[in-house]
This record gives sequence, structure tokens and C-alpha cells, in this order.
Amino acid sequence: MIRHLLSAGDLSRDDATLVLDTADEMARLTEGRAVKKLPTLRGRTVVNLFFEDSTRTRTSFELAAKRLSADVINFSAKGSSLSKGESLKDTALTLEAMGADGVVVRHSSSGAPYRLATSGWINACVVNAGDGTHEHPTQALLDAFTMRRHLGDLAGKRIVIVGDVLHSRVARSNVLLLATLGADVTLVAPPTLLPNGVERWPCATSYDLDDALTGADAAMMLRVQNERMNDAFFPSAREYSRRYGLDARRQALMPPEALVLHPGPMNRGMEITAEVADSARSVIVEQVTNGVYVRMAVLYLMLAGTNTTTEEAA
Amino acid sequence: MIRHLLSAGDLSRDDATLVLDTADEMARLTEGRAVKKLPTLRGRTVVNLFFEDSTRTRTSFELAAKRLSADVINFSAKGSSLSKGESLKDTALTLEAMGADGVVVRHSSSGAPYRLATSGWINACVVNAGDGTHEHPTQALLDAFTMRRHLGDLAGKRIVIVGDVLHSRVARSNVLLLATLGADVTLVAPPTLLPNGVERWPCATSYDLDDALTGADAAMMLRVQNERMNDAFFPSAREYSRRYGLDARRQALMPPEALVLHPGPMNRGMEITAEVADSARSVIVEQVTNGVYVRMAVLYLMLAGTNTTTEEAA
Amino acid sequence: MIRHLLSAGDLSRDDATLVLDTADEMARLTEGRAVKKLPTLRGRTVVNLFFEDSTRTRTSFELAAKRLSADVINFSAKGSSLSKGESLKDTALTLEAMGADGVVVRHSSSGAPYRLATSGWINACVVNAGDGTHEHPTQALLDAFTMRRHLGDLAGKRIVIVGDVLHSRVARSNVLLLATLGADVTLVAPPTLLPNGVERWPCATSYDLDDALTGADAAMMLRVQNERMNDAFFPSAREYSRRYGLDARRQALMPPEALVLHPGPMNRGMEITAEVADSARSVIVEQVTNGVYVRMAVLYLMLAGTNTTTEEAA
Repeated sequence: MIRHLLSAGDLSRDDATLVLDTADEMARLTEGRAVKKLPTLRGRTVVNLFFEDSTRTRTSFELAAKRLSADVINFSAKGSSLSKGESLKDTALTLEAMGADGVVVRHSSSGAPYRLATSGWINACVVNAGDGTHEHPTQALLDAFTMRRHLGDLAGKRIVIVGDVLHSRVARSNVLLLATLGADVTLVAPPTLLPNGVERWPCATSYDLDDALTGADAAMMLRVQNERMNDAFFPSAREYSRRYGLDARRQALMPPEALVLHPGPMNRGMEITAEVADSARSVIVEQVTNGVYVRMAVLYLMLAGTNTTTEEAA
Repeated sequence: MIRHLLSAGDLSRDDATLVLDTADEMARLTEGRAVKKLPTLRGRTVVNLFFEDSTRTRTSFELAAKRLSADVINFSAKGSSLSKGESLKDTALTLEAMGADGVVVRHSSSGAPYRLATSGWINACVVNAGDGTHEHPTQALLDAFTMRRHLGDLAGKRIVIVGDVLHSRVARSNVLLLATLGADVTLVAPPTLLPNGVERWPCATSYDLDDALTGADAAMMLRVQNERMNDAFFPSAREYSRRYGLDARRQALMPPEALVLHPGPMNRGMEITAEVADSARSVIVEQVTNGVYVRMAVLYLMLAGTNTTTEEAA
Repeated sequence: MIRHLLSAGDLSRDDATLVLDTADEMARLTEGRAVKKLPTLRGRTVVNLFFEDSTRTRTSFELAAKRLSADVINFSAKGSSLSKGESLKDTALTLEAMGADGVVVRHSSSGAPYRLATSGWINACVVNAGDGTHEHPTQALLDAFTMRRHLGDLAGKRIVIVGDVLHSRVARSNVLLLATLGADVTLVAPPTLLPNGVERWPCATSYDLDDALTGADAAMMLRVQNERMNDAFFPSAREYSRRYGLDARRQALMPPEALVLHPGPMNRGMEITAEVADSARSVIVEQVTNGVYVRMAVLYLMLAGTNTTTEEAA
């Protein structure tokens, strides 16, 4: 159904809804079961091609593929011929030649998954698992899935995304997907941490977190990356936490049923207090669970229909 | 049957016997078979959460889980968000959220597996695969299993454990388990390498290896860790080897049927001579084999009964 | 059928033909299928014991084993007790004790796989996946398989191998296998990059690439290893490329149906131009595909017949 998943912006409302509905089905078929395994992708090969370390995301995709009975190969770029100077092209040709059906790629360069998918080097389906500061579409899908489970249809829902939007592929993918789903998104960030051209994004912006949170249906806190904090344009930790951190007082500005999300891993005490992170309306842990369902849905929609010679060889 | 396996001291005699009997059954069902695989844990997920490298132990658990048809995720702490400062709590919540049924944890801090299991963060079963200088219960179980196969019931058997007891989680777990099983244990170590409070352990201590070995049923040699050898309280290598190493002369002080054990990897020529390591009464290689059976038994007893919705989803 | 695969020179013409025919069968049973999996080695354990990093070769073996439904353990030497000084012997004993049926070994020392296989330490089948500058027999088999698919029987075919023969296990294994299969092999290399004793190899040598290529059926370009290029006996990059690189002009010296091979990863612009690498007669990508078939064949021939208790335990 889906050829590649490179950007949350590529998904039509119908596409996105199909992924979310399929993820619901994956949850229904596996949640709470002792045998959390479906035979759907038996004999398919999914390659995790990670040029950046990310144990959480890699593990989530690995679990999703294994729960669909696919074979998973972890092809870390470290220690591979990539570190001996092999080009992305030759890596792509190698994975294709080995028979990869799906390639899940994380890369520090924005656009690398796009190049992989559109260069003609491979027939395999490509999933962008995070490229530079660009996009992380399965994160946006799992966030939307999580919110939809609690809030119902997201059309008209008010969602606030808070923090270092400039460097956040999570924010960008969320804005694109949530706009497609009809939500009203407000970005809250220090002026120095908003990207150029944000005024053309399908969302509002604000510098006043208290104001934005008032009446919101969900607050999504972005991770503060420690390596950014020495940048000249970054506020001091204390200042950041005071102005853009979510604490119990701010959480109370939202209606009682409003959700708190975070893509993880959290810096407790920085962008979010422990009290809020562990509060009843925090769905941060559930996001992780839902990540597996959403990735199962994406892999299923990409790979299950391909190649109709489905009879077992031998 | 078993909820967590954190300390060898937590096991009653009945518990320990159940693990050993189950390991016997695992051996019976797989030893020498071409298909060394049981369908028992199909659809279950076992996570190897290793904060310290240990290829041998990790591989043994991975094989044990795969032979029971479980899915295995190797979640190395290196390169994970743990190295970005994520707390043990958030890692635990993540693994739980991803649907881990069992978590096998190795950590440099004594007590980390206990915290993981008892904090309420996770429902998954936790196996301590070595925590600091504290415990390594599956090692003690595989040692007991190996001795029982050769010596029969361990009650009243005389077992000598030799070396750097102070830093050895293997020694501590063995003393606790062997005492539960009724064996008479003697620790032999330089005075500087015995822990404070050893006089309250359920075993004897001695500084005279020749004396301790005379009439013993088994000698278990501990690994000398090279990184310890520059410590002020450590004897010189030559002195250590002379006073606490097992050579053929000393082996001959034991009855001919007495066993020689070592948790591996050995420093041949240091704590044990190659001649003794390769002698007919050395069961060092067999310990490795039995490690897989014992870990199969532990995972089976922990995970097989959980969650009775055992029908295959879809 | 095959006990170990240590050297391409150990294979008789019948052995080699059996491997190639079996690889044909593997291709027939899996190529283009959605389910590229055969149940043949279910319950068998293949260990990838890699003392040197090689993501490509390790992945190829991992895929081959998984497509035959074997369990695969990646036992990297990094971070293992090997880095704590464990001997190859103790590692071998450990793998054997854990029930490894096949061990795929890559090692920087020539002869390590031979020692592993012939020392009596293990019963497992051993596959040499590259040892020092010595051999890489499955590479030679996949090269022969690839050429045979295009050229038919290799007897009498003229094959030119070009580059740093001195340090190339690929060249050595190819010369031995191709001679067995009756091909006429010519090595082309700078005099400083030919090994001592090459005059006793079953092949011709030449310093003139243009001359050697004229009328050849296939050109196999060896990888230039960057770490060698500072060696005193190595020509400058420009000189190397000019005299020993394959460009379109040189490719045209061969008949139009002549093949171009490279074991990968390529240094495009060095030993081969991008134009030639991507030309219609380049089978470089196909070599990667065929690598999986050939390794499936090798693992199948080694492991499928062993141990006739094939009924599923329990």
C-alpha cells in the first residue's frame, strides 16, 4: 500500500488514517497475548541500517519486524565498509543484492533516506527512522496514534509542541502529520530555536508557554539535547527549564484530560519534571508501546502486499 | 514458577532443585539432537540488557532463549540513550512498554537487577546475569547442576572455592546456593581478598589450599582479573600462582573422582595450569554446555506459565 | 558432505561443482519469492565468530543461515573475553560446548580457521570467512558461481585478476578454485605486489594489463586497501590507477560479453571507474546476491546431513 515512508508530509489523510487503523489492528492482535507474534512477514528480510546509534528506535523496529515474523538484520554502519569509505550507493546496492525487502534507515544527513529511496539503487521499501534535523515520520505516527486513542479524531484538537524545534525532526514530522489530520498545532520555543521559514509551516508559533497550554488537548515536550546546550543561541539550563519546562503548575493550565507526551529519552528536571512525567495524564510510556504497533503497521503495509509468490519454497 | 532470579540466596532448596531438575529435562530434550529447539516460549520476548560487555554470558542466554523459540533483543547500553544519561528507570519503562517478557540484566553496580525488579517499573521477569561484585546466580546454578550430574546429591559434599573471593560474584552466589543444597564449602583466598563479614557466610575459610583440597569433592577456581593485579592488596602473579593456583600436584591431593571447575575465561598458568584445565576430571567445558540448559530452565520457569492467553493471535 | 571449508584448494572439481550446483538450487528455491526461507536447518546453530569487522561478509552469512532457518549467534571478538586474553582454544571449546553446529570465522591471522578446525577442539563445521592474507574460499565460490552463470563451464575460460595480489586472500582463493575448475588465470600486479613463490601458483602473471585483458572472458579487480597505500612498495594512487585501474578504454579490450567482477567494497575511481562499475557487463552487484546463495549451499552441505536425529524434540 505504501511504497516508502520518508516524510510525514507525504502521507495523505487517508494514508495516515490507514496506518493508524492498521496499528489499532496490530494492537488488538498482540496486546496482552502470550504469543505476540503474527506470521504475516515470514521469509521477508528487514534491514536496520543505522548510521547513528539509536538503541530505542532500532529496538522498536526490530521488535516490530520480529513480531511479524520477518528476519531482521542489524547493519550498523560502525565497523562496516562505510567506515572504510564505501558510498551510500554501494551500501544500497549491497542491501538490495542481498534481498532486503525493507530498509529502515537512520542517518545524520537530512535527505539520506530520500536519496536511498529515489535514486533507483534499490527496490526495497525505505523507512526513514530519523534523518538529521529533518524528519522522523514513525515518531509522528506513534504520537498521533497515542493521541487518537485518548482524544478520538484529532481534527480540531489543540496540540502544543514545546522546545528546540530548530533541531527537532520530531517536531517537523509532527507538525506535518497533525496538520494533515486536521489538528491545530502551536509551536512554543525560544526565538533562537525556531527554524527559518517556520511562518510557512501549517501551525502557529508562540513564545508564551502558559498562554499556549491554556485549554490545550495535549502538550508534547521535545528533548533537550545536551550537546546543544553550549550553543550561543541556547538559553541557560535554568532559564530554559523556567520558561519552557513543563511542571505541575503549567500542566494544571490544561484541562484535566489533556495529555503529556515526550519522544524520550527524557531529561527529567529539564524540559519536564518527574512529577509531570509520571502523572496520570502522561502517556510517555504508552508512546513506546504504540511505537511498536505503528512500526508493525508501516512494515506490514509496505511489505505484506509485495511479491505475490507467497507459497513457501520447498 | 519463579518471578525473578536476583540472588542465589533467594532460592529455597525446593526452588533450586526444581531449576536443576528442569535443566536436566532441557538437556534430555535437546542434547545431541539435530533440532535443538523447543517451541515453549514462541512469541515471548527476552531482552538482554547488558551494561557491561560479556559475550559469553550474553551468548549463553541468547542461545537458551532461542532454543525455547523466544525472540531475543540485545539491548546493549553502549550507544544507547543510557550513555546519553537516561536513567535506569526510563530504560526499564521503555523495555516494559515494548513488551519485554523477560529482562536479563548485567550491570557494574551491585543491586541494579534488584532495583529493576522491585521498583514496580516493570512486570517483566528479571534475571541477574551478574551485578558488580555481588551475585551471578545462574552461574551458581550451572555449577551446582554440573556437580550434581557427577557427584549426585550435593548434601554433605566438600567443595573448595579458591581465589579472589572479595571481587567475585561467582563465589558469593555459589556459597549461598551450595549452602542451601547442603554442601560444605570452604573458601581459600589471600586474607586481603576475603570480604569483610565473610565469617557470617555459611561456609568455612582457609588460607591453606593444600589442606583444603585434601579429600575435597570439587575445586572451583576463580578467575584472576588482570585489572585487579596492580592493586596493592593483590599478591604478585608468581606468588598468587604458587599459593593459590591449581596444578597437577595439588589436584592429586583430591580423590581421583574429584571435579575441577572454573567459570571461565581461564588464565591458564595463573589460577590453573593447562594440564589441570584439560585433565579428565575437569568439567570446565561441560559447565558452558550446562549453562545453556540451566538458563533454558530459568527462562522456562519464569516465562512459560505467565499469561495464559496462549493461542496464537491470527 | 563437506566437513570444513578452509581453503579453496581443498575442494576437488567434484566438490566445487557440487557447491555451485547446490547454490543454483538455492537460487531457484528462493529468488524472487516473497518467502525466501527454507526449513532445512531449523534448530541448527551457526556462530559468526568475527575477530575482524566485516559487516558485508557477516551479514551475508547471517542471511544465508537465516534463510535456511538456522539460529544465528553473532559472537564478535570485540568486548568478548578474547579481548581479556582468552585463547582461541578456549573460545573454540566454549562455542562447541554451547552446541554450535557451524562456526564461520574471520581472523586477521592466516591459518586461524585451520587451527580451529583441525585442533580437535571442536566438532562443529568450520567455514573460513577470511583469514589474514591467506584465503577467503566462499568469495572464490561466489565469484565462480557468478561467472559460471554467465559464461557456462569455466574450463578454458580466460580470467584476469588485477591488483594487490600480495595482500589479497580473494586472489589466492580464486586462483586455486579457478585452476581446479580448469580456467586459465592471469594475475596482473605491480611486481612489488606479487607474493614470493607466485611462480608456483597454477596461473600466469603479467605486468601489462592491456595485454592481459585482450580477449579475456572476465576481469576481476581487487580492492585497493587504503591502509596499504602508504607502504613503500605501493605505487602512488595516480600511478596505480593509471597502470592497474579498469576504465572504459581497457574494458573495450575485452570481448563485449566479458564480465567485470569486484569483491567490494569498491574504491570508485581508483581500481575501477564508476563507468565500468555500473556498466552492463559488470556483475558486481550480482556477486553480492550470489554470495548468499553460495553460503546457503555451503552451510547446507555442511550441516544438513549431520546428526540424523532430525525429529523435533518435544
